[in-house]
Amino acid sequence: MSPIKIGLVGVGKIARDQHLPVIAANPDYDLVAVASRNATLDGVDSYGSLDALLDARPEIEAVALCTPPQGRHALARHALERGRHVLLEKPPGATLAEVHDLVGLAKEKGLALLATWHSRYAPAVEPARAWLAGRTLKSVSVSWKEDVRHWHPGQEWIWQPGGLGVFDPGINALSIITHILPRALVLKAATLEFPANRQAPIAAQLDFQDLSGVPVRAEFDWRQTGPQSWDIVVETTDGTLALNRGGAAMSIDGVAHLEEPEAEYANLYALFSRLVRNRQVDVDLAPLSHVADAFLCGHRVLVEEFHD
Amino acid sequence: MSPIKIGLVGVGKIARDQHLPVIAANPDYDLVAVASRNATLDGVDSYGSLDALLDARPEIEAVALCTPPQGRHALARHALERGRHVLLEKPPGATLAEVHDLVGLAKEKGLALLATWHSRYAPAVEPARAWLAGRTLKSVSVSWKEDVRHWHPGQEWIWQPGGLGVFDPGINALSIITHILPRALVLKAATLEFPANRQAPIAAQLDFQDLSGVPVRAEFDWRQTGPQSWDIVVETTDGTLALNRGGAAMSIDGVAHLEEPEAEYANLYALFSRLVRNRQVDVDLAPLSHVADAFLCGHRVLVEEFHD
Repeated sequence: MSPIKIGLVGVGKIARDQHLPVIAANPDYDLVAVASRNATLDGVDSYGSLDALLDARPEIEAVALCTPPQGRHALARHALERGRHVLLEKPPGATLAEVHDLVGLAKEKGLALLATWHSRYAPAVEPARAWLAGRTLKSVSVSWKEDVRHWHPGQEWIWQPGGLGVFDPGINALSIITHILPRALVLKAATLEFPANRQAPIAAQLDFQDLSGVPVRAEFDWRQTGPQSWDIVVETTDGTLALNRGGAAMSIDGVAHLEEPEAEYANLYALFSRLVRNRQVDVDLAPLSHVADAFLCGHRVLVEEFHD
Repeated sequence: MSPIKIGLVGVGKIARDQHLPVIAANPDYDLVAVASRNATLDGVDSYGSLDALLDARPEIEAVALCTPPQGRHALARHALERGRHVLLEKPPGATLAEVHDLVGLAKEKGLALLATWHSRYAPAVEPARAWLAGRTLKSVSVSWKEDVRHWHPGQEWIWQPGGLGVFDPGINALSIITHILPRALVLKAATLEFPANRQAPIAAQLDFQDLSGVPVRAEFDWRQTGPQSWDIVVETTDGTLALNRGGAAMSIDGVAHLEEPEAEYANLYALFSRLVRNRQVDVDLAPLSHVADAFLCGHRVLVEEFHD
């Protein structure tokens, strides 16, 4: 089968760190060109907009949208209307309605659409899901604490309405627990800490229950300097499962069961290739829906101003 | 067919103003008893909790839940688990996940579940929907402005997280426009005004677009004294449709087309009776999902403190 001719929109940090190297390494893809308002890329044709990209390079079959979430819906809708398959960086939109719309449009057009919950493709996530299936849970604890200055240097969009703040990394944890836990979750209470000078929270504490009443506590914090935490601990009647380093490592009762190299975006692009060949949609709204619930029913607290 | 033996939980303002008179007037229902933490009702047996109600009166087939939204999920889940049909006052829950859960449970158990978007049953709503179908829209403007002190005297829950604030009435407008407009809406921008001493907004401005790009502007305000506004104006290429008084009245280019007596809850209970007979679920998540989107991507502004 000939490689998928792909274009990439939004040449920012996530595109350079993940998408471009993974596309280059995967023989299923042929990167035709990129679109970016101001960035260029050595050795790759670059256009100023999605429209210019598709006008100049009609052979493009699929686009990867790596721009901030606030403008993603318009780009995705436009690409689908012009008959292109679409890969959406996470979160898949700034609102639930946007994502519902894209799912409907992709199905109507028979095009592939992928909402990339990349953390679900961390190497230990499937083994954790398999180990938990059928076991009796006692409690779940999520700690997702990192240094925003290190991971999102100068990214203003992340603090603006629709930018999600600490839920931008936190939604990765939610994408994992909604995948590995045997039962659906319902948010019972939440606290969101907003810096007095910002529109998005810098920290959040979420208390979910699963549908059998198991407490699921998640703590997200962007003020963590020193060691960073991306840990999920599930206590069961058969022992304690820990997923560490964002799903890269797994242990049971402290004994390492898996320590594999990270390959999240490689797995995602392998999945997207299958979706494109079969013209399928893979969009799970659950992680974004839980974030919307947290904003909807969360207790807002104003905290110290944040300056980059 | 024998009347549906119904119990009512939460004897507050909405129960007294609407549910109880409508149940009394409808021969499809036999009100068995009510549950309330502190209120009692002349001539009707009253119990301290849902459990006490169902224990004492096992003949109850259906329950109407008129308590505040924050505790509704636990009550509804419990009633469904005990095999009772459930009518949910609006909003149907404090989170989207709660409502998803109830829909799944009701379907699994083969029980009726109704999310009551009562404003959709205002007399002019169906005629407005019929008139708009197939017409070309130019713009939509929603003005939902009322005096919170008059309509929600001393209701603390409405200001607490999950209480929705001005979206408690505003969701009525959203339930109408999501029903009468021909195309789905996507929220593009929102501003939410929070009193500095409250957890819920007192005003909001929402800018939607429908999927053909028509602008839909909604203004909600709880600080309106004097005349109250519950108006929706739809400009089309064939003239301007106005829905006034919350859907009770309709005019086209200023000419009244309909002025019917209000019968929202009577219509709702007629619908619920059909759902119970057929063990069906009628839960549209769109209005609550748009509210969640507004909290998710809205610009928050702090305004003057509110004191009851």
